[in-house]
Amino acid sequence: MSSTRVHASMDTAMAALDKEKWKKNIHVLSEKLRKFPGLVWQKIGKVGRDDPRRIVHALKVGLSLTLVSLLYLLEPLFEGIGQNAIWAVMTVVVVLEFTAGATLCKGLNRGLGTLLAGSLAFFIEFIANKSGHVFRAVFIGAAVFLIGGAATYMRFFPHIKKNYDYGVVIFLLTFNLITVSSYRVTNVLRIAHQRLYTIAIGCGICLLMSLFVFPIWSGEDLHNTTVSKLEGLAKCIEACVNEYFSNPEQEVAQDKLCDDPIYQGYKDVLDSKSRDETLALHASWEPRHSRHCRYPWQQYVKLGNVLRHFSYTIVALHGCLRTEIQTPRSVRVLFKDPCMRVASEVSKALMELASSIKNRRHCSPEILSDHLHEALHDLNIAIKSQPRLFLGSKKNQASNMLALQAATQANHQKHEKDHHGVSLSSVKTDSSALLEWKNKRGNEQPKENPERKTLRPQLSKIAITSLEFSEALPFAAFASLLVETVARLDNVIEEVEELGRIACFKEFKPGDEVVVDCETPKIDVTQNYLPSYGAD
Amino acid sequence: MSSTRVHASMDTAMAALDKEKWKKNIHVLSEKLRKFPGLVWQKIGKVGRDDPRRIVHALKVGLSLTLVSLLYLLEPLFEGIGQNAIWAVMTVVVVLEFTAGATLCKGLNRGLGTLLAGSLAFFIEFIANKSGHVFRAVFIGAAVFLIGGAATYMRFFPHIKKNYDYGVVIFLLTFNLITVSSYRVTNVLRIAHQRLYTIAIGCGICLLMSLFVFPIWSGEDLHNTTVSKLEGLAKCIEACVNEYFSNPEQEVAQDKLCDDPIYQGYKDVLDSKSRDETLALHASWEPRHSRHCRYPWQQYVKLGNVLRHFSYTIVALHGCLRTEIQTPRSVRVLFKDPCMRVASEVSKALMELASSIKNRRHCSPEILSDHLHEALHDLNIAIKSQPRLFLGSKKNQASNMLALQAATQANHQKHEKDHHGVSLSSVKTDSSALLEWKNKRGNEQPKENPERKTLRPQLSKIAITSLEFSEALPFAAFASLLVETVARLDNVIEEVEELGRIACFKEFKPGDEVVVDCETPKIDVTQNYLPSYGAD
Repeated sequence: MSSTRVHASMDTAMAALDKEKWKKNIHVLSEKLRKFPGLVWQKIGKVGRDDPRRIVHALKVGLSLTLVSLLYLLEPLFEGIGQNAIWAVMTVVVVLEFTAGATLCKGLNRGLGTLLAGSLAFFIEFIANKSGHVFRAVFIGAAVFLIGGAATYMRFFPHIKKNYDYGVVIFLLTFNLITVSSYRVTNVLRIAHQRLYTIAIGCGICLLMSLFVFPIWSGEDLHNTTVSKLEGLAKCIEACVNEYFSNPEQEVAQDKLCDDPIYQGYKDVLDSKSRDETLALHASWEPRHSRHCRYPWQQYVKLGNVLRHFSYTIVALHGCLRTEIQTPRSVRVLFKDPCMRVASEVSKALMELASSIKNRRHCSPEILSDHLHEALHDLNIAIKSQPRLFLGSKKNQASNMLALQAATQANHQKHEKDHHGVSLSSVKTDSSALLEWKNKRGNEQPKENPERKTLRPQLSKIAITSLEFSEALPFAAFASLLVETVARLDNVIEEVEELGRIACFKEFKPGDEVVVDCETPKIDVTQNYLPSYGAD
Repeated sequence: MSSTRVHASMDTAMAALDKEKWKKNIHVLSEKLRKFPGLVWQKIGKVGRDDPRRIVHALKVGLSLTLVSLLYLLEPLFEGIGQNAIWAVMTVVVVLEFTAGATLCKGLNRGLGTLLAGSLAFFIEFIANKSGHVFRAVFIGAAVFLIGGAATYMRFFPHIKKNYDYGVVIFLLTFNLITVSSYRVTNVLRIAHQRLYTIAIGCGICLLMSLFVFPIWSGEDLHNTTVSKLEGLAKCIEACVNEYFSNPEQEVAQDKLCDDPIYQGYKDVLDSKSRDETLALHASWEPRHSRHCRYPWQQYVKLGNVLRHFSYTIVALHGCLRTEIQTPRSVRVLFKDPCMRVASEVSKALMELASSIKNRRHCSPEILSDHLHEALHDLNIAIKSQPRLFLGSKKNQASNMLALQAATQANHQKHEKDHHGVSLSSVKTDSSALLEWKNKRGNEQPKENPERKTLRPQLSKIAITSLEFSEALPFAAFASLLVETVARLDNVIEEVEELGRIACFKEFKPGDEVVVDCETPKIDVTQNYLPSYGAD
């Protein structure tokens, strides 16, 4: 009886709680709804602010559509063209792309595809025309099957896929349109003719709009992204070395990879392959749009490849900051000066390359300055002057260094505790944890323990930290990778010089080498490249 | 006079030579023409052999097109649908994609876009209907401009671009079609209605074909590429360490990066980002197509990211094989055994992960075996037992090692000469070349010397090799990176376990761990993903 009462009172308490919860939820929801229009407005604004050319493009599409609609809306124009003016409207929707190169590529593909399909359809029509009604239907069906299969198969050829894929789709579409229509429509010549010239009108409007009204060039984008990639890498390499030699306190905040400014610096370069290739493909369709001799889009792609290879070394360098065995900071300090100098010289060289491309002039002959050579030399001397560091076997010294490291880590952990309220001391650093974990794992049922992932200590990390590797090893890796960046810098310089030669950059004049970093806001062009659709 | 005769005789000789040349050219050309059909045939065959599903897809497209043409060709069907049956044909051309997921994504987008555009167009029509002829034209023009601009702007929103871009394009197309037509056609309801159901018929045929006739799943592709990426990395890491410790004679042939099997191994992983994301997007549209609980496409993308990060370390490791300062082979040999064992254990673990994903079962709890731990331990001991190697300053010993290295290099060069007939001895290895190059460059005119690139010695490489860095430095980097791969392996294992948990993999049974590498031919799925077009 008393238990029932307790239950009942608990139920009312629960109900009250539930009500409270509901009220709260509704409040939160209404708050969210109130803020929603503001958020949407903010988001809409952001897309335009990120790259104002998007607004220009949207207006251009609107204007072109209105212009092409006039064909249908204005009486005298409609008289001439007729009902099929609607094909011109469709063409504008699907052909007008963000950049001039992409529009040209699609427009010409569309024109060519339509023309070819029309010719082939006439040939088929010519044969089919001479036969009976039933045979004609069978013949058209067979032709549709064969041409459909063959054209689709052709789209898998790498070369065709890269350059003429859209043309093949339009070919297939127009071919089917004309061949199938020819069964019922007597004057199929008129359909084909109308389709061809309405599409031509549509393409014409698109080309006019994209080439002469605030044109946006793929080539320019390719140029600008190359400059910003070089600048990003330059900042990245300096930031990397700075962080390696900085105080541990400053590091604590950056424990998530995606928030890391260094990661942000090279991420763009790593992911640039497909974007670069698309830009280069579109740039290859663009007419010469400046006084420069010709647009070496292929060389930009090559430079992009070399930059990606350069950035892999930086990724590895960045990995040194987060590796499990760390050289104690007291040891690192010994090499701080020459390393920082090497990094700053490499960074300066990259900045000079960026500014050379930006201003379309040859890069300074002083680009690999004596400073770099000196800095490398000093690094070499510093390493040679500290031979004992590379000794791992001197027990007392090793334990000394380990003690130092332990002290640093304890300090570090304390800081982390202060900041996050999380204790890291429960992570076992001896290999007994290995055995323990294995035993645990053998017994448990994987499905019944969703927390397994969090419970599990990082197994191989234990294996690594439990070994007392020479602490100089990671520093040696760091130094070696830094020297490697210098070697790879050479390839970058070579490709930039080649670019300068092909693109007829200006001569270098003394005084040009002043690197003015005006810190222009970086535009994420990736978001601009809308996927292209658009048969009709 | 005699000089004229000489000239004349030279002219006849030249003419004879020219004729000879022409004949030869024509012969070469005719030979090429004769071989051309064979080559084309070979290429056509290769596309199909690379992935036979391409043939299936081509046949499916042909069949669907024929089926949909029947709507137009068969009398009773045509009676019901009429002239606009052609829209169904168009829908099939543009919606039927290689995989089921992509087809579903496009089909549903197309349906949704058409529906929305139809509704909006009716609303506009409703308003415009009540006004005069001229006002109506202006109103339609304004609506086309506004909706065109707004829809295009919307396409730049990342979320819409990723999921609904095609839908927005179709919306715009249908909206324009109906609104503009409504100016001349009285019964616009019929157009909209017909368009909607012909498109529905087209989409229906496409979905039937892609879901029930030899379906090709994006999810399966994502699964298989993940397995082959893991296998590629496993082979890559072993090949890398093998090459590092192999004899120099075997290396000579692999001087071009693109022919390098190691490069081939990780290249796929590096370039996989956009392909993985597309596959995952399409997989997310696919219905549950197997008895497994649900398709964790997002987890595959995460695993792909971790694998890419893993492969950056391998790129750096690979860089160690080609760096300028090399640890002499006599020194490397001292560490050969433990390094090879670490690499083979890492490789074994990756293979086990690959087979675990391939067979959809949890991976062995023994995946990080004691062997790995032992191998790391031995590597540590080996490094500690050779402290003198990490000493760069002991003059006599350093020069000893340099002499050794010089001898090795001379040997190496001799081999290269034998193979290529190219002498490398002209490359200056002292820093005087630096000065020389600078002087040369200051004087020359860049435009007038196209060969400058080949003349120029590799500048910073000179700077690096002229310094006598401790030769142990690059080995330390190599060892450190190898240890780093073990640390990163942990992240890979974690993500694979998470994948196993989400995708409800089978329990691991003892006996499963036998890694059978059946060496299935690798399919390059990249080539399968045709760009998608296809408004109508």
